[in-house]
Amino acid sequence: MELFPVPDLPEIEPGDDLAELIESRSDLRPDDVLVVASTVVSKSEGRLADLDDYPAGPRAREIAGRVSELTGEEKDPRFAQAVLEESTEVLIEAPFLLSETPSGHVGVNAGIDRSNVSGADLLLLPRRPSESAARIRDGLAGRPPVIVSDTCGRPFRHGQRAVAIGLAGMPPSRDWRGELDRDGRELTATVQCVADELAGAANLVAGEGADGTPAVVVRDWDFGDLDGSDYLFRDARGDYVRQALRGWQYE
Amino acid sequence: MELFPVPDLPEIEPGDDLAELIESRSDLRPDDVLVVASTVVSKSEGRLADLDDYPAGPRAREIAGRVSELTGEEKDPRFAQAVLEESTEVLIEAPFLLSETPSGHVGVNAGIDRSNVSGADLLLLPRRPSESAARIRDGLAGRPPVIVSDTCGRPFRHGQRAVAIGLAGMPPSRDWRGELDRDGRELTATVQCVADELAGAANLVAGEGADGTPAVVVRDWDFGDLDGSDYLFRDARGDYVRQALRGWQYE
Repeated sequence: MELFPVPDLPEIEPGDDLAELIESRSDLRPDDVLVVASTVVSKSEGRLADLDDYPAGPRAREIAGRVSELTGEEKDPRFAQAVLEESTEVLIEAPFLLSETPSGHVGVNAGIDRSNVSGADLLLLPRRPSESAARIRDGLAGRPPVIVSDTCGRPFRHGQRAVAIGLAGMPPSRDWRGELDRDGRELTATVQCVADELAGAANLVAGEGADGTPAVVVRDWDFGDLDGSDYLFRDARGDYVRQALRGWQYE
Repeated sequence: MELFPVPDLPEIEPGDDLAELIESRSDLRPDDVLVVASTVVSKSEGRLADLDDYPAGPRAREIAGRVSELTGEEKDPRFAQAVLEESTEVLIEAPFLLSETPSGHVGVNAGIDRSNVSGADLLLLPRRPSESAARIRDGLAGRPPVIVSDTCGRPFRHGQRAVAIGLAGMPPSRDWRGELDRDGRELTATVQCVADELAGAANLVAGEGADGTPAVVVRDWDFGDLDGSDYLFRDARGDYVRQALRGWQYE
């Protein structure tokens, strides 16, 4: 398996054709996997916004006030409002906002980015990342699988890693259940989320800084002759961490 | 960046010299990263056990009884006892056991494996995975960084992916804070856990089944000129999911 960045991509602007920009700079094959950072997908889709677009309601003002009090850093209630409007369920309100987005992804601040945005205060996540992935894929001659990735933190473990927030052309997971191990015994409960592992692998060569590249090609990786699982996100009913967070409050 | 499996490794037995077995089957270079599955590290270290080694105490019997009741599947109280003895903190007791191991890793059943074990009921995680990684590294001529990986599930997202449970020869994360983004603005709060991304990438070519290989070489990946962060696991005090789980019970 080999990974290489798509070189020399320009700064992406609303309306840019990402597929064309990537295809003209790479020799993408049908059996490659293309991993694209959500930031450039969002930019191409014009998912830019300003804080003034989000006049803060009472809940946003309350959350921002509480976060400011807890952290000692002034939190803009308009930002809290933006997060609320981009969320279907808030799991943590303070000392930071953790929420589920309409696509099912759970992330801090609903994945809204303030660090890498040209000419706007906020960069929102693509509204339907798997549809974005399908659109990019449809623009590529070989129609390889496409993953839209984002970096985020997680419980228990330090630091962030990239995950898939949407994808097209492949299932997110391979299902090893029923396969045999080396001792000839049947494997149980092994659904491998290859989409997340591919997103993380791509992030190793993408980088975050000024020299970072938002698109990476994965070559000579094989999904294999395995069943796929269609689910990228946990069913909320079986997600005990989510249940625990619903009953928890920072003290 | 390129990844390839170490071919033709034999079934690993207690006392086997993993470094030698891997080195003789690969052309490892000092700037490669070697990712080794915890299963073979455990086997080489003789971390095999039988259920009879764990006579169940009252807490294990209570947990096993509750899990059996909830899931309708008989849970062996000796297995619950093994998990308790391999754990420093139990975060979920039912309907499954989620706990922290002495090294700081949080996993289901303390990472104890029942699926891939020859001649024993249980395969325990290496007791000190970073020391295991250092030992393997010391046995390799070029002393490349070594990661010991395990696959496990996570909240919010479906399926499992591999993570690093121990490592030697490199920091687990690279710290982008203070670096500039494409717009010349300073990046904030971006600590990238490359060890987990490397473990996940390796898992894409390692596989789980009979043809799976437990050792993968990562070539032509560069940590880059960045600060490293020494932490692989979150500080429990800042881990709100952990705090929420402490106050939660399955109903």
